[in-house]
Amino acid sequence: MRALPAPTDFMEQIMAQVRTGEVTLGERETVEQVEEGTDLAPKFDENGLLPVVTTDADSGEVLMLGYMNDAALKNTITTGEAWYFSRSRQVLWHKGATSGLVQKVVEMRIDDDQDAVWLRVRVEGDASCHVGYRSCFYRSVPAGAAPTGGKIALRFEEHAKVFDPKIVYGDAPNPTKL
Amino acid sequence: MRALPAPTDFMEQIMAQVRTGEVTLGERETVEQVEEGTDLAPKFDENGLLPVVTTDADSGEVLMLGYMNDAALKNTITTGEAWYFSRSRQVLWHKGATSGLVQKVVEMRIDDDQDAVWLRVRVEGDASCHVGYRSCFYRSVPAGAAPTGGKIALRFEEHAKVFDPKIVYGDAPNPTKL
Repeated sequence: MRALPAPTDFMEQIMAQVRTGEVTLGERETVEQVEEGTDLAPKFDENGLLPVVTTDADSGEVLMLGYMNDAALKNTITTGEAWYFSRSRQVLWHKGATSGLVQKVVEMRIDDDQDAVWLRVRVEGDASCHVGYRSCFYRSVPAGAAPTGGKIALRFEEHAKVFDPKIVYGDAPNPTKL
Repeated sequence: MRALPAPTDFMEQIMAQVRTGEVTLGERETVEQVEEGTDLAPKFDENGLLPVVTTDADSGEVLMLGYMNDAALKNTITTGEAWYFSRSRQVLWHKGATSGLVQKVVEMRIDDDQDAVWLRVRVEGDASCHVGYRSCFYRSVPAGAAPTGGKIALRFEEHAKVFDPKIVYGDAPNPTKL
């Protein structure tokens, strides 16, 4: 009896399938077809990317906003795990490959004009933010209250990190750019 | 006794306040300040925009993914209602000005590197999508199931429109671009 393939072999098989056209995207022919039809016919932006909202499937919390290129979209569909394109590193990115914080896709949705994706996920390890918080959106902006001066003070809504990024990422460059 | 200002006058006052610098954004000085500080110091993209995830404050459902320019961000903070920048129409856009489907901001958050916003809103009229659905993300993409062929069939997750866009928008051009 043959052993199950190692995870890396498995991913390579998946990648090969994607490369040989296991997922085909539709053409964008009419507004009605894009908005009211059942063809997956996404519109990538001028950099070849779609923005992706990722929420916790159970709590509804927004965990992160990322981007997918063509390969990330196809790999997510094929594997059921979240893949992105890292703009700061300019590479295809299997979320959790470094940190172990893999995102299992519970549901994937696309918007009316098919230029944005919503992923509902369960996260192995309970954190999605490279700073160590559960959500990347760990600070709130006061809105609707008249500001007392011109400056806006953010408020922390998470008060403890889930992991220590120094331990998880070591000396890898921080993706945040000024 | 002076009457309350009409809504248009009120908005003009707000706009005037914004123009005279009622909200001041911080400078991006260090990664630590951006990620771990309390200054609102957003990073607009090469087109001067931030992506914005808008969710229903009660259900957690993602309603839309939009964009804010500097003025939309400041107006949202000052008024407590969602303002966006329409990329298809290239105008500052007070959500609901045409449709009446105003979004009241319950909470506003910003992400780790301050290049994305999350709005939790309550919608007057219970719909946020120009096609007439509650959410723009009314279709799902099968993910994780091996595709039977190359083509992906979307599935409708909303089965009835909340409003008829022909009645609400009339002959206004459809924002969806091919």
